[in-house]
Amino acid sequence: MPHQPRYNAAVMSKSSPAPSISEPVIVIVGVGLIGGSIAAALRQRGFRGRILGVGRTAVRLESAQAAGLIDSGTTDLSAAAAEASLLIFCTPVDRIADGVLEAAGTCQPGTLLTDAGSIKRAICDELSTRLPSGVTFIGSHPLAGSEKQGFEHADADLFLGRVCVVTPDETTPHRSLEQLRSFWEFLGNRVIEMTPAEHDQILARTSHLPHVVAAALAGAFSDLPGELTASGYRDTTRIAAGDPDLWVSILLGNTEAVVSGLDRCGAKLAEFRDAITNRDAAALKSLLETAKRNRDAIG
Amino acid sequence: MPHQPRYNAAVMSKSSPAPSISEPVIVIVGVGLIGGSIAAALRQRGFRGRILGVGRTAVRLESAQAAGLIDSGTTDLSAAAAEASLLIFCTPVDRIADGVLEAAGTCQPGTLLTDAGSIKRAICDELSTRLPSGVTFIGSHPLAGSEKQGFEHADADLFLGRVCVVTPDETTPHRSLEQLRSFWEFLGNRVIEMTPAEHDQILARTSHLPHVVAAALAGAFSDLPGELTASGYRDTTRIAAGDPDLWVSILLGNTEAVVSGLDRCGAKLAEFRDAITNRDAAALKSLLETAKRNRDAIG
Repeated sequence: MPHQPRYNAAVMSKSSPAPSISEPVIVIVGVGLIGGSIAAALRQRGFRGRILGVGRTAVRLESAQAAGLIDSGTTDLSAAAAEASLLIFCTPVDRIADGVLEAAGTCQPGTLLTDAGSIKRAICDELSTRLPSGVTFIGSHPLAGSEKQGFEHADADLFLGRVCVVTPDETTPHRSLEQLRSFWEFLGNRVIEMTPAEHDQILARTSHLPHVVAAALAGAFSDLPGELTASGYRDTTRIAAGDPDLWVSILLGNTEAVVSGLDRCGAKLAEFRDAITNRDAAALKSLLETAKRNRDAIG
Repeated sequence: MPHQPRYNAAVMSKSSPAPSISEPVIVIVGVGLIGGSIAAALRQRGFRGRILGVGRTAVRLESAQAAGLIDSGTTDLSAAAAEASLLIFCTPVDRIADGVLEAAGTCQPGTLLTDAGSIKRAICDELSTRLPSGVTFIGSHPLAGSEKQGFEHADADLFLGRVCVVTPDETTPHRSLEQLRSFWEFLGNRVIEMTPAEHDQILARTSHLPHVVAAALAGAFSDLPGELTASGYRDTTRIAAGDPDLWVSILLGNTEAVVSGLDRCGAKLAEFRDAITNRDAAALKSLLETAKRNRDAIG
């Protein structure tokens, strides 16, 4: 585990020399699949500080604590923020900016805040000028997830070998960016930097558009006999089982790029329709070959 | 293996009492992923007759024989058909009807012919009045497959627990239908009967349309960074890596139902586009909920 010492060093370096107050405290806001998996990965990789969970439902936090994921839980974000070395917001994307602003009011100078949301521009724009001095937010998006929900599906290996995009801006302190990189690398991620706008443009195509297409396909027919679907249908529509509320926020947080992607995909579907209607085998084969070439290139 | 005695009995019952000529011969025409998997499953489940492979390339047949899948191989379909108890055509769908007609010219009275093609109506219509007396063709479609190609990916468990649709018509001899059911059940399939037209209507929605949608999505962007795609993109587009030639034949063999499905999916995509463009969270949530409900119902 080459990353482990590096991250521990980064966290420990923030602390005072007195052992009693040097224990790093990671606050996970939203202990669901992603938040729970972060906690599980921290545990498995030997993180030696405290993991504090923040949520809206005390009984869920108690369950997450009983499951060994968090050391303690609270519904009081401000109180948790006051203790934090690092806060990670794993809430739905439409609640991240407000949560960061609330937490920033009580957290200590030098605290780093980040998130795990699937859109970055709206969040980073909203926060860019509104944080108190000495408190840093850097956007993150670990490209890992599942159509499943809840910390019960937490997976300590969820981030292993996956990319995590981080989106610093020109004002981001270098030390905070290094700390954030170390954190995600400690969990097993490979970290890539880009701007929030670049992130949202690319993810519109690699994640948000596929979600809409899978949902449109699954939504088109309500009466399909499950026994007559094979793995093709199941794979193509799998992500349509994701949480509707989460995806409303994501899609409405990146409308322009998603609609642009939808139009390009719609045009491609129209080309397929024309080739099939005209029984144009050459055109249809060319369309299928392009698709195969693109897909094979992804690996 | 409850099916095994039943199938062996069905095959054996066709033979003469003389042991030397009573060995059942199954001829697999097209020893690729599906044909190879049928051979592998027959072996694994203890089939005690001969397995003969027919293909266009002698060297590929020799490799399949060397791999232990077939007992022998030939490029001469007519010669193989003369020995067959049962022929299964696992060729691309646009070559099945011609192959069946060629084989029917030399096979013995009582021989059963079937296929494994993804479309049924065009094939069954073409064959319904053209076979010699005493030779029976019944369409089959085992709902199993892969985007991979070639007998090198043959899997003896490919059919385990999967549905195989068979499409007899009113003239199909009961005994042939029983023999065909026993054959697929011996491989581990669950057999369902329907008409060729019903099959094509349903498979347009559960298989052919998803293929077009996955290919349109994969075809829309040629420049995606693979490291920024997560499992959502990979699953949604996986089948776009399938063989273009195979899919040209399938899609052009079921145009009407596929275009009808495309239009319904296109209308659903337009609803998503409207909801996103209008930032209509309620409409978007409703669309995503319907998709999730349909997908969850498939299991």
